[in-house]
Amino acid sequence: MGETPPFLSDPETTRESIMHATYLALCEHGYAGLTIQRIGEQFEKSKSLLYHHYDDKDELLLSFLQFMLEEHQSSVPETVDDGADERLDAMLDVLLPPTLDEEEQGFTAAMVELRAQAAHDQRYREQYAEHAHAFHEHLVSVIEDGIEEGVFRDVDPDQVAQFLGTLTNGAMTRRVTGGGDESVTATRAEVNAYIDRVLRAGTEGGE
Amino acid sequence: MGETPPFLSDPETTRESIMHATYLALCEHGYAGLTIQRIGEQFEKSKSLLYHHYDDKDELLLSFLQFMLEEHQSSVPETVDDGADERLDAMLDVLLPPTLDEEEQGFTAAMVELRAQAAHDQRYREQYAEHAHAFHEHLVSVIEDGIEEGVFRDVDPDQVAQFLGTLTNGAMTRRVTGGGDESVTATRAEVNAYIDRVLRAGTEGGE
Repeated sequence: MGETPPFLSDPETTRESIMHATYLALCEHGYAGLTIQRIGEQFEKSKSLLYHHYDDKDELLLSFLQFMLEEHQSSVPETVDDGADERLDAMLDVLLPPTLDEEEQGFTAAMVELRAQAAHDQRYREQYAEHAHAFHEHLVSVIEDGIEEGVFRDVDPDQVAQFLGTLTNGAMTRRVTGGGDESVTATRAEVNAYIDRVLRAGTEGGE
Repeated sequence: MGETPPFLSDPETTRESIMHATYLALCEHGYAGLTIQRIGEQFEKSKSLLYHHYDDKDELLLSFLQFMLEEHQSSVPETVDDGADERLDAMLDVLLPPTLDEEEQGFTAAMVELRAQAAHDQRYREQYAEHAHAFHEHLVSVIEDGIEEGVFRDVDPDQVAQFLGTLTNGAMTRRVTGGGDESVTATRAEVNAYIDRVLRAGTEGGE
């Protein structure tokens, strides 16, 4: 969700410039290696602006996560012409790509590190709960549309969306923490089997 | 996998005592708040032993992960009397419990933080690849048994095991990073739907 580069390649405001510099520094150094200094190295304006706005790197990163959420919400394509099954498929293609280029790999690794901050930091936990909620609502609406269109069975949209949210989270984490691309490719193939047999109406002598 | 307390409640060797102290310190402080000093506070023997054996907290934690893996491998119950479907169900019950007590919650949060170290630290990545491999092989053998017993369809055991590994990883991460228990409960319910319709033979007019 919102992790798809290119990210803000043409920043217009100071805030966008700061967010772009943060993105580049995260791709290069990850969370553990990140410092305000290193974000400053990616920043074409006065570095004092950074120190003026943010007390420490976590404050800046929480602002970055909030920004990503806003960007994502304003950029969700309203592909109302497509059926719900194509829309779900397109979402999963974005979330479970077979491979990542170097920049995407670096950013995904940084996102996994950032998310882990939520395990001990209430501010990150609240931010990720907000992200998860927005993503969940998006999935729920696609599933509800599919039921209405008659392409999906009469499933519990909330339960299916939680399940798919868990899968995409796990795939992202595993890829960069030892599972490699093959864990994602195999997961995606089996998600298709799940969609075919559990979600899609009218298969396997379905309802 | 191996995250099920009680963990080493009766340590016998010095190594087991160190591992037990590490476990308690992880439950209480998480990874971010962990120091060798704090592990020492949980350690009933001479603290100099800790400093003698380990240069820094990451070296100790990598040793802890290796220890967990060995413990897990020697403790996997050989419930050969049960059918493959009951064994899979029992594994998922352990991995996706509806709630966690305070100690389990603390340890799960610490494990999520530890796993995120693998995003930038090659040593953790290798350790987690080993964990994932052992867990994967265990799942594959249960699925293969189920196919042989005729309770599971003729699925690709490798692909199904990757899928279930991704799910359990995602569930563990989401629970402690903003998703709460309900994300796990919903995921577990939908895993059952997946097992019923995709994995289990002879349902839904199956093969």
